[in-house]
Amino acid sequence: MEKIQVDNALLKQFKAWFQEGNLAELHAQLQHMYPQDIAAVIDRLNTEDARKVMNALDKEAVVKVLVETDQDVREQFLSAYSSYEIANEFIENMNSDDAAYILNHFPNHKKEEIISNLQDIEYASSLLELISYETETAGSLMALELVKAYQDWSVAKCIDEIRIQAENVESILVVYVVDHLERLQGIITLKNLILADPNSQIHDLYNKEVISVSTSAPVEEVANITKKYDLMVLPVVDPLGRLVGRITIDDVVDFIKDEADEDYQLMSGITEDVDPTDKVWILSRARLPWLIIGLFGGIASSRFLAIYEGQIMIHPEMAFFIPMIAAMGGNVGVQSSAIVVQGIANDTLGTKNIGQKILKELRVALINGIICSLLILFYNLAFQHSYELAITVSTALLAVIIFASVFGTFIPMLLNKLKIDPAIATGPFITTSNDLLGIMIYFSIGRLLY
Amino acid sequence: MEKIQVDNALLKQFKAWFQEGNLAELHAQLQHMYPQDIAAVIDRLNTEDARKVMNALDKEAVVKVLVETDQDVREQFLSAYSSYEIANEFIENMNSDDAAYILNHFPNHKKEEIISNLQDIEYASSLLELISYETETAGSLMALELVKAYQDWSVAKCIDEIRIQAENVESILVVYVVDHLERLQGIITLKNLILADPNSQIHDLYNKEVISVSTSAPVEEVANITKKYDLMVLPVVDPLGRLVGRITIDDVVDFIKDEADEDYQLMSGITEDVDPTDKVWILSRARLPWLIIGLFGGIASSRFLAIYEGQIMIHPEMAFFIPMIAAMGGNVGVQSSAIVVQGIANDTLGTKNIGQKILKELRVALINGIICSLLILFYNLAFQHSYELAITVSTALLAVIIFASVFGTFIPMLLNKLKIDPAIATGPFITTSNDLLGIMIYFSIGRLLY
Repeated sequence: MEKIQVDNALLKQFKAWFQEGNLAELHAQLQHMYPQDIAAVIDRLNTEDARKVMNALDKEAVVKVLVETDQDVREQFLSAYSSYEIANEFIENMNSDDAAYILNHFPNHKKEEIISNLQDIEYASSLLELISYETETAGSLMALELVKAYQDWSVAKCIDEIRIQAENVESILVVYVVDHLERLQGIITLKNLILADPNSQIHDLYNKEVISVSTSAPVEEVANITKKYDLMVLPVVDPLGRLVGRITIDDVVDFIKDEADEDYQLMSGITEDVDPTDKVWILSRARLPWLIIGLFGGIASSRFLAIYEGQIMIHPEMAFFIPMIAAMGGNVGVQSSAIVVQGIANDTLGTKNIGQKILKELRVALINGIICSLLILFYNLAFQHSYELAITVSTALLAVIIFASVFGTFIPMLLNKLKIDPAIATGPFITTSNDLLGIMIYFSIGRLLY
Repeated sequence: MEKIQVDNALLKQFKAWFQEGNLAELHAQLQHMYPQDIAAVIDRLNTEDARKVMNALDKEAVVKVLVETDQDVREQFLSAYSSYEIANEFIENMNSDDAAYILNHFPNHKKEEIISNLQDIEYASSLLELISYETETAGSLMALELVKAYQDWSVAKCIDEIRIQAENVESILVVYVVDHLERLQGIITLKNLILADPNSQIHDLYNKEVISVSTSAPVEEVANITKKYDLMVLPVVDPLGRLVGRITIDDVVDFIKDEADEDYQLMSGITEDVDPTDKVWILSRARLPWLIIGLFGGIASSRFLAIYEGQIMIHPEMAFFIPMIAAMGGNVGVQSSAIVVQGIANDTLGTKNIGQKILKELRVALINGIICSLLILFYNLAFQHSYELAITVSTALLAVIIFASVFGTFIPMLLNKLKIDPAIATGPFITTSNDLLGIMIYFSIGRLLY
């Protein structure tokens, strides 16, 4: 196999083979491709062609490719099969974590129907357990395939056990050591097993310093622990401390990447997970909600400004600085909330309480506010504008920066306390509120000073 | 050892021990802590107390903690040691990738001075090579510690070699198979080594399907490959295909997380990597550049609006919709550029060229622009505002949404072509430009229609 660039040239080649009905060439090409690359090709083909590729794969390759394809492609493909076929041709040949992942995309009754069709009762019962864990918990992410050893085993016995389990467990990184009640006691690396005297005892060799998580631990915690302690694989225990599964770092990487992408999209005002290759109406739909919120914010601003219609008529120069006041409020608000949101996500918020945080934010705002206000004061005094306007703009700018900072810090912390994803506070929501807030402050000060 | 919550209570406990001079308790506590947690404590202590903690650690623990601390804390700590001491007390005891990471934070002459002080000449020469790779390449991220086997070895010989190298190589996941010219030929997992007959030959056992990267591969490529193919460790080869090092996934995870954080901060208008726990002036400094750009944008808007002073005086109601036009332009621009930036980062931009991308973006913009324009048209016709204003606002909004979309798509693609990080296009830069663009479009249309 070799890494292959999935590009237009390759897709054209595939389509040519379909037209010629040249299945021999297709088959030869697929032999050299990794499942991930085959999936990338399938994701860009139409349903009929995708099915031709799948049919050209052997059983083992089909399930590997299936796990890697886009969800809609997978659903489309599986819809042609009965529950019995899905169970025994696909699910049966997958690792438990992949099987659970795919099963969880089916409606509940379908999920259970598929599992009940599995021939391997023990595997079926494990899958039932796996799909029962709440989403976004360690239990829902773990795989059941692992090698465990009892403390009183010898190294030779442990290696025999690996031999027995080797077929089920694709990659073995460590062996978990449990007591007679199946409670996790420690780990032993394959390296240490290889180096050990075969007659030595596991309980003299294993490392008791093992980090584990409980099945109910949120995936965020799993990600933070894996990342912090540089772990390759993390054992999962039940509330009684019994070993029930393991999570490998590659799944954690996917989670970290997905979370980051989601936060980035939320901040940029996109409400669904979209790719540039998605259909036009999906891209439109993902963006429209935030635009409509912005529209309402704009209407609110216009109604507020209408109150000051007389003042604008007499002092039209006040309108000149509306964009600046609105933009600066928005920018400062996003900056403040982004730092808090990231601090919450990375657990680097520190140990101070909300009051202290806001106090610190106030000091940052004061420094930046004074600098910006002075700059704009000099500008306004130097260029044509009236003394009153110069004072109004600078005072308003300082007030807006301070309010927007506090608001931008407080909202995500409040959302976090209320167990709502604080990331929704960033982006258009904060911008829109701060636009409005800024205009209100600006014209209120204008009325006082003019 | 156990995971420990590094919180205020723990820090108070540490400070109490320092005051009492109770080093026995301090020592006992440190025995139970992971290096990562000790580093988290040290990062929050003052220099003097941090040094006390470091001095209470044994040699092996010190280097592990040192790698995990914040860069400024580490620099502060190491500044008290001579190059000779840094070389032989710290660098000497580190893995090569950690050593190179720390060395790279020193100025060039200091780096070389430290390396030239190492007693172990072979290690020194390896480190010289490691620090010679450009930053953000596979070469700069890799570790040199690995176990390799020649094709003509037996399994028993390979296991003997692991025994010899075990001390140097902390975690062994796979053994790399090379030919007599040191060129990478394949891998063999420890699992397969354990299961194999000791008398069998490596060349009958190893897996030829090994994915590798060259030393000059950008770290982004390393991250994409590791993530896509679910790899735990990735071998690095030189231009002649010779095995020179390996990259483990935990370092890739750190890179992915850092990149995501950086993009998020760029988008939110923060120019340095800051944490909520950083000092006030550092937080101010990180935010100020974008605020000043916003300020200049605001000044430009104000100068542009000044041209329309007469029109605002006669039709003050035109000013009511300035915030909406500016905000919508900014929102749409950020949405468009965020999708492109993420598409570039994740390599999901698809295979179409710039022209086709912009055409697609135009269709998305047209749908959303028409919906938003119609909504605001209904609002303006239903509530008090003049027919002319209603038409002006709706036409301008549609134009602004379309322009902002194209602009937001084009700029990051252009930056990417010019090899500039496209992420800087998002956030305040796009917002500020689109604010200005929006106002210009709005008042130009207003002059035509009124």
